[in-house]
Amino acid sequence: MTNTISQAPMLQAPISRDSGEPLADQIVRAIAARIDDKHLRAGARMPSIRQFAGKHGVSPFTVVASYDRLVAQGYLESRRGAGFFVRERASLNTALPAAAPTAAAAPKLDVVWLIRNLFRQVPGEASPAAGVLPAAWLDGPGIAAALRAIGRQQGGMLLNYGNPYGYLPLRQQLQRKLAELEIEAAPEQIVTTVGVTQALDLVARELCRPGDTVFVDDPAWFLMFGSFAALGLKVIGIPRLADGPDVAKLAQLAALHKPRLFVVNSVLHNPSSSSLSAAKAFQVLRIAEEHGITIVEDDIYCDLHPGPAVQAATRMAPLDQLRRVIYLSGFSKSLAANLRVGFIAASPELAQRLADRKMLATLTTSELGERVVYKILSEGVYRKHLERIRGRLDAARPQAIRRVEALGLGLDSQPTAGMFLWVDAGRDTSVLAAQAMEQGLLLAPGSLFSPDQLPSTRMRLNVAALEDARLWDFLAGAIGRAR
Amino acid sequence: MTNTISQAPMLQAPISRDSGEPLADQIVRAIAARIDDKHLRAGARMPSIRQFAGKHGVSPFTVVASYDRLVAQGYLESRRGAGFFVRERASLNTALPAAAPTAAAAPKLDVVWLIRNLFRQVPGEASPAAGVLPAAWLDGPGIAAALRAIGRQQGGMLLNYGNPYGYLPLRQQLQRKLAELEIEAAPEQIVTTVGVTQALDLVARELCRPGDTVFVDDPAWFLMFGSFAALGLKVIGIPRLADGPDVAKLAQLAALHKPRLFVVNSVLHNPSSSSLSAAKAFQVLRIAEEHGITIVEDDIYCDLHPGPAVQAATRMAPLDQLRRVIYLSGFSKSLAANLRVGFIAASPELAQRLADRKMLATLTTSELGERVVYKILSEGVYRKHLERIRGRLDAARPQAIRRVEALGLGLDSQPTAGMFLWVDAGRDTSVLAAQAMEQGLLLAPGSLFSPDQLPSTRMRLNVAALEDARLWDFLAGAIGRAR
Repeated sequence: MTNTISQAPMLQAPISRDSGEPLADQIVRAIAARIDDKHLRAGARMPSIRQFAGKHGVSPFTVVASYDRLVAQGYLESRRGAGFFVRERASLNTALPAAAPTAAAAPKLDVVWLIRNLFRQVPGEASPAAGVLPAAWLDGPGIAAALRAIGRQQGGMLLNYGNPYGYLPLRQQLQRKLAELEIEAAPEQIVTTVGVTQALDLVARELCRPGDTVFVDDPAWFLMFGSFAALGLKVIGIPRLADGPDVAKLAQLAALHKPRLFVVNSVLHNPSSSSLSAAKAFQVLRIAEEHGITIVEDDIYCDLHPGPAVQAATRMAPLDQLRRVIYLSGFSKSLAANLRVGFIAASPELAQRLADRKMLATLTTSELGERVVYKILSEGVYRKHLERIRGRLDAARPQAIRRVEALGLGLDSQPTAGMFLWVDAGRDTSVLAAQAMEQGLLLAPGSLFSPDQLPSTRMRLNVAALEDARLWDFLAGAIGRAR
Repeated sequence: MTNTISQAPMLQAPISRDSGEPLADQIVRAIAARIDDKHLRAGARMPSIRQFAGKHGVSPFTVVASYDRLVAQGYLESRRGAGFFVRERASLNTALPAAAPTAAAAPKLDVVWLIRNLFRQVPGEASPAAGVLPAAWLDGPGIAAALRAIGRQQGGMLLNYGNPYGYLPLRQQLQRKLAELEIEAAPEQIVTTVGVTQALDLVARELCRPGDTVFVDDPAWFLMFGSFAALGLKVIGIPRLADGPDVAKLAQLAALHKPRLFVVNSVLHNPSSSSLSAAKAFQVLRIAEEHGITIVEDDIYCDLHPGPAVQAATRMAPLDQLRRVIYLSGFSKSLAANLRVGFIAASPELAQRLADRKMLATLTTSELGERVVYKILSEGVYRKHLERIRGRLDAARPQAIRRVEALGLGLDSQPTAGMFLWVDAGRDTSVLAAQAMEQGLLLAPGSLFSPDQLPSTRMRLNVAALEDARLWDFLAGAIGRAR
């Protein structure tokens, strides 16, 4: 039995020709949202190209392009002669090896839900759930100029495989950047990666074996839970307090579980935007030493912080000098996510093992993105760009906090840097996010950030993307408080 | 005890100011070769910057740059106040998890030796051991022009993460390319990867569990052995005959080992440049069906073959239409290795699982390289470029075969396409390669291509890179036959 939905409202909001957003992008986004929120169910038949085009006043060509993209994104399937149908979606979970049955680690389909939605974002569109800055805040023209400049050089540079450690001038530049953080790392201690995602994957694959335990912040970046679970690792969350991990809990669980790694956002923790105090940094390192834990310091939000001279924030890598600490960072938040440039700094011996491991996984990384980042970093425009971003965040944040508080939503602390607010909505935010979806609004519910995927009253808001009045109308309505 | 080698001859050949190769490149290459061939041993102290500069008539700045690069490549280490020392090199082997004790699969340090040497190649320099075409044969200016064109578009395209499946216009282009090979694959069946290396890694991680057995051609591409071993897989080689795998052996070993995957180069097998016959393709598929084996058809040399209309060659994906066959290919051989653009074509269901798996490993791949490949493919210059490359290979190959035969070296068959000759030198080629190293010549000994790393009298020659007279002088001398 196929239920046909050609008469049902296909798009929540009408297509706008004035928004500057391509029509196909609007259609793709809207239909995908209708599928995600389950208004369009698996197996449902889509309107024909002609029906859809006629109903929404767009050209059949636009509809074909939109449907094709939805097919490519796994939302629709095309059955020959019968048209387009909403597809059964597999969860990330089903893709995990059966050999890795770690109760705490298995991500639920919500992770797929949010990740897919985040990937659907089109440039120029900002979502309160996004983990990156709006495109308009970033320096697209600067990146385009760097590309042209690289293209004016000889193209021969890309013909060979490149250095397994990564583009040397970039690593030399990173050496200077790390020196400013008081981390001494020679270029041979630095290995470039396909974003911090590959960095975490390589570190875990090199240092852990299936069955090992890995500690993470609770809450923390959700994709990591799936990555670790896929490696057969057990993931346990350490409660994150305002000044860093709960060290009593850490010590107790460390003695119990003997974890191999502890992955920590020391500075501008995702999602709370809080940073480690000096005392906490020292205590965590001491516990790590006592129990032989390797600290993986994920510093991806580094450049959104104004520096410890301006605001307190302590990293562990400068204290330990890359003996027990592996330092990760990258440029997805501050420059451009799709350049996919991250890096690992570690002891020379471990860096070599990680470079070898990288060869086995991807041979090398593309030098092209690394050359773009190098160009931007080395020409001194990066610092000004960061000041501009931080200035805009500093302007947007207090306003966002005021609106959040006016709604009666809770905040443990008021962040003074970074892009996230970790808001307490006083109700299950998975339910709230599902309601928001119906209005085309994407929210990031707290359960996603929990290593145990437990229900949560929290949600993460991106302060750079809260200008949509519909968001505040929705929250006011849903939470039932006047603004 | 530190043995100082400042008086020993540091470079085999004098530095040349006329070769067009930067001085630092020459120094790095020469010192690395001296370390690889063990003339410089671990722990040896390098001459001081000043000594080296004085002895070889180069500026101290050049020496500093060279030493720094050797440090970054893991050849040297810098000890504060004491100078530079040759470093103890860890083998890939030591980086493998102890949980994966698969006798057949563990790569020896020779793999590191060859891989490091291949990576040391500088653009413009051709090595008979190389797995890629010389830079001069490829289209550097075309790639540079594509980069400039992309840079003239809005840079905003890279600010977000991009599509987890990869850049859609490229996947649509690949759909057409696959259709020409009679493989029907919609864009949602195509997932881009960081080269074929990541494609193999993702497929193995998605479909295999530690302890599983994977069949490969014997001989085959050596990096794969390390990748699979690192996943705890057991690697078993199936002898490769002139028209494809030894099917009797395949059937026998399949019944015995119940392998999960069989990775095959159907067309222009590396290193023999032979291709599958129609009969063999059918037989292999039948055996795979009988034993539930997934065929991974690695078609990276696809575009160096003139097509089945010109020369017999059968792929399995067109027969099976991506049901039991996963098809892999990429552009490292025909366009540029460092763009790192490969792809997987698979059933829609498996493609989705692999796209999810890719997210866990690298989130997305960089769209930049994919846009460059798309631009070159879609503008129609690619076909002409391939014709030019194949024409040059066809001109170089008969000459190489004549010279090989004049030396009395054996060849099972005379390839009529592709870039490799799989030569029988009648003696252990590991020994031969070590001797060649002393003269600064890099050879690829047969043992590297053996899943068991067994001694071999074979070696792989790249027909595009045999113009160096030193190679033929060396071979004539070592093999003791007149040319």
